[in-house]
Amino acid sequence: MSAWLLPDQIADVLPSEARHIEDLRRALLDTARAYGYELVIPPMIEHLDSLLTGTGEALDLQTFKLVDQLSGRSLGLRADTTPQVARIDAHLLNRKSLTRLCYCGPVLHARVDRPFGTREPLQLGAEIYGHAGREADLEILELAQASLAAAGLQQQTIDLGDVRIVDSLLAGLALEPAAVARIHAALAAKNSAELDLLSRELPAEVRSSLLALPELYGGPEILAEAARRLRPSPLLERALGDLRWLADQLSGANLSFDLADLRGYAYYTGVRFSLFGGQTGRLQELVRGGRYDEVGGVFGRKRPAVGFSLDLKELVSAAAAPALQAAIRAPWGQEPGLRAAIAGLRAAGETVVCVLPGHEHEVDEFHCNRALVAQDGAWLVQPLAA
Amino acid sequence: MSAWLLPDQIADVLPSEARHIEDLRRALLDTARAYGYELVIPPMIEHLDSLLTGTGEALDLQTFKLVDQLSGRSLGLRADTTPQVARIDAHLLNRKSLTRLCYCGPVLHARVDRPFGTREPLQLGAEIYGHAGREADLEILELAQASLAAAGLQQQTIDLGDVRIVDSLLAGLALEPAAVARIHAALAAKNSAELDLLSRELPAEVRSSLLALPELYGGPEILAEAARRLRPSPLLERALGDLRWLADQLSGANLSFDLADLRGYAYYTGVRFSLFGGQTGRLQELVRGGRYDEVGGVFGRKRPAVGFSLDLKELVSAAAAPALQAAIRAPWGQEPGLRAAIAGLRAAGETVVCVLPGHEHEVDEFHCNRALVAQDGAWLVQPLAA
Repeated sequence: MSAWLLPDQIADVLPSEARHIEDLRRALLDTARAYGYELVIPPMIEHLDSLLTGTGEALDLQTFKLVDQLSGRSLGLRADTTPQVARIDAHLLNRKSLTRLCYCGPVLHARVDRPFGTREPLQLGAEIYGHAGREADLEILELAQASLAAAGLQQQTIDLGDVRIVDSLLAGLALEPAAVARIHAALAAKNSAELDLLSRELPAEVRSSLLALPELYGGPEILAEAARRLRPSPLLERALGDLRWLADQLSGANLSFDLADLRGYAYYTGVRFSLFGGQTGRLQELVRGGRYDEVGGVFGRKRPAVGFSLDLKELVSAAAAPALQAAIRAPWGQEPGLRAAIAGLRAAGETVVCVLPGHEHEVDEFHCNRALVAQDGAWLVQPLAA
Repeated sequence: MSAWLLPDQIADVLPSEARHIEDLRRALLDTARAYGYELVIPPMIEHLDSLLTGTGEALDLQTFKLVDQLSGRSLGLRADTTPQVARIDAHLLNRKSLTRLCYCGPVLHARVDRPFGTREPLQLGAEIYGHAGREADLEILELAQASLAAAGLQQQTIDLGDVRIVDSLLAGLALEPAAVARIHAALAAKNSAELDLLSRELPAEVRSSLLALPELYGGPEILAEAARRLRPSPLLERALGDLRWLADQLSGANLSFDLADLRGYAYYTGVRFSLFGGQTGRLQELVRGGRYDEVGGVFGRKRPAVGFSLDLKELVSAAAAPALQAAIRAPWGQEPGLRAAIAGLRAAGETVVCVLPGHEHEVDEFHCNRALVAQDGAWLVQPLAA
């Protein structure tokens, strides 16, 4: 097999896309910084125990394993940065106060669910630790919106759900974990026939609530409908109240709700959201996040947490390509005036490509629309014919 | 063992250092861009064959191995980015003209030679493909100098050598590879007694040259001394001529030469260099590079190449810490005037930290030297007492 062949669903990123990714990386990290999020850089490898404890267990199949020669222990290549950032909050920083953190770096997946997905996303995310209230949920949602806007994606849809809604309906029932799992699967598939079958033995109010759930998706109006049709409880009321409040506060995006949605159920403990963005008419799911208050417990410190993450490689495919930055072509030479002119242009932010001896007749790889030329003893920048 | 314990010589990077690394990353990639270097992002994992062929063979012991579930093939976690960039130049871009590329990302080392070194350097580098002349060597050296200067390290020393010097002395002799390796080892250790022993059977002129080599280190004056003391040949003359020419062209750094140096011998084919920089009186070796014209052959296309790389985590330890960026503390609220004031400050590049309800009396994690306060119906930024 050829040495240049890469593994399946692994690819190089070539110059024009790499530059766009770098631009987005900076724009999004600057946005997070403007909101007061501090950057951390967790390692690419950790002990498998650390990566797969707590919230990480679902990641087992996705995680590449390797052996540490120094210790003989099993290591994992990170498949998600969130458990690492929770570890940093819980153990290394160990602050009592609210902590805002952000990160950006590659994660690796041993397998992917989508046929054309990459096994090496470039994950960027932000998290708030230490605040259990909906104000933190709102800040994270607004930061996610600002992040898409920073990538030039003004047209946005936010899809919201809350795992507490299903939890509130099943609370207090003596159900086997396997029975709960079957109900969850039927809800996730919006399979009403199966739900009908599974809920026959349940109290009438629970049964009618479960059968109503798959129909409870749409705009903010379904929140009132949910309050009418679902079995009332303090937990349900809190969840619906928080969603209503978020809907009132959020601006600049279409909102949709799906109360039967259970994606990330093992992980989230409250509100769950996705942000869709893209060019007109082609919105992609780009950001996923929510509240996961149990995270960090395995590292000795359970703190409320809410956050989001996205894949910059996915984001770059949805964002409009940036304008080509034009460069200046300069001759090669050691004449001090030429050297000074080149250094001055570079210091001013210009790209100056020196034509090395023997390469005078090559096509520029950068888009050079100007040239540095000697005229009357001075070096001047002049436009090049297109 | 505790879940928060990291593997040996693997560490998290916490906020203040992470921010400094991000600043340096941007400054250095911008510098490379100003010189016309295009960014590429090779993957973290590749088939082991690709990573360890050609120039990569010496990296075998340093490379973490894993298995690809999708194909059953052996993968490696990259320990060096250079062979990947050579592959991109040779195969993916496949340009006839000169190509300038740069990159920045983590590399992983299964073991390290230094007791306190990290096993996860953040490697940044730049390469020119397609130019065999010393003008490309000079451009790479100047870019390396500009990179250290961009990190605030003005005080620099460049250490230069050239593997062609030793090659020129041993050329034409019928020596076994093992005998050559012993001579290389003795030169690397500057072990004159061993050299004396190993060179007894060699022609007198070669012998006296080999014995002179360990003394040929110092300033540019040793180049003339080398021309007098070493066995003359066209290859020696070219190597010394190129070093003399580089010494004449380079400014802004102390130059030192070590003609017996053989570091990276298996890799380099011409000039080899290190750049030292740091705060006054504590210079560290930060940049390593040279010419490696054989690279890319294994990918079907042997092109002349010269480049350098450095570890941003090492660079950050040598660079002066940046000034703390001061932030603005703002109250939490949904009042439109407050929201607009916060958005305006953030858009202007300020960090605005909202105090979420219940956290009014916490110490700010960001250094807040100003606060947003309501006064006469308007929101104003006011200084905070230190």
